[in-house]
Amino acid sequence: MNDDSMYIILVGCGRVGAQLATMLSQEGHAVVVVDDDPDSFNRLSGNFSGSMVQGNGIDEDVLRGAGIERADAVVTATNGDNTNIMVAQIAQDIYEVGRVVARCYDPVRSKAYEMLGLKTICPTTVGAEMLRETIVAEDAE
Amino acid sequence: MNDDSMYIILVGCGRVGAQLATMLSQEGHAVVVVDDDPDSFNRLSGNFSGSMVQGNGIDEDVLRGAGIERADAVVTATNGDNTNIMVAQIAQDIYEVGRVVARCYDPVRSKAYEMLGLKTICPTTVGAEMLRETIVAEDAE
Repeated sequence: MNDDSMYIILVGCGRVGAQLATMLSQEGHAVVVVDDDPDSFNRLSGNFSGSMVQGNGIDEDVLRGAGIERADAVVTATNGDNTNIMVAQIAQDIYEVGRVVARCYDPVRSKAYEMLGLKTICPTTVGAEMLRETIVAEDAE
Repeated sequence: MNDDSMYIILVGCGRVGAQLATMLSQEGHAVVVVDDDPDSFNRLSGNFSGSMVQGNGIDEDVLRGAGIERADAVVTATNGDNTNIMVAQIAQDIYEVGRVVARCYDPVRSKAYEMLGLKTICPTTVGAEMLRETIVAEDAE
C-alpha cells in the first residue's frame, strides 16, 4: 500500500473487470470485485490480491457488504448498460463516492449521462476511433 | 472523395462496425460493410454513404464480391475473435491488402497475433486502461 492507495469497488468481473481488478490491486489499491456469477471470479489472475463479493450490484445490501460506505472509487463494467449506470448513480448520488465511472456501450446514452454529470467510458466509440486511426494513420503502410 | 480516399471493407456491422462505417464514409472513403445478418445494416446511420454486402466474411466469394481484390484496407469487427483473425489473415496474406486490422477481445491472442505481424485492437485491454485512468488520474476529484 502506498499513500495514494484507494479502496475501489469493481462491479462486473467480465474480461475488462477482471483485467482492471488485477491492474489496480497490483498497483497497491484495495480492490473488491462484485459479480452475481461466482464463476466469473475464475477470470481473475493469480496476481489479484483483493476480495470477491457474490451478488448483484444494484442491490444496496450487496454494495454495503462490499464496503461502499468507505469506498474511494466505484467502477461498473457488467455486460449491461442499465446495470452499470444504475450502480454508478447509486454510488455517486446516495453514497457520495468521490470517483465513479460507468461503462456504457450505447454512445447516445453515454453522452447523455456525461451531460448529467456521470463519468462514462463508451467502448463502442473508443473502439471505432482506434480502428479508424490504425487504418487512416499516414504511416500505416 | 479526396486524394487520400481509400476503398475500405468492414467485416462486421455491430455497434463498432456501424459507427466506424459512418465515420469513414463521411471522411470520403469508399466503404463496403459485410455482415451475414441483414438486420445488422439497420445500425448504419442515415449519413452512411457506402454499400452493404450480406454474407460471411470468411467466405472468399463474399470477400471478392465486396471487392477485396482492389481494397486498400480491411477492418474486422464481428463479435467473434476467430472470425476477425481469420478474415484479417485472408486479407493480409492472400489478397495482400495494405492496411489490415482485426478486433480481438482476448488480450493473450491479441498480443500473439501482433507478434505474428497482424495488427489487432484489443477492446478488453483498452477498456480496462481507460477505466483505470479515469479512476486513478490525479485530477479525478
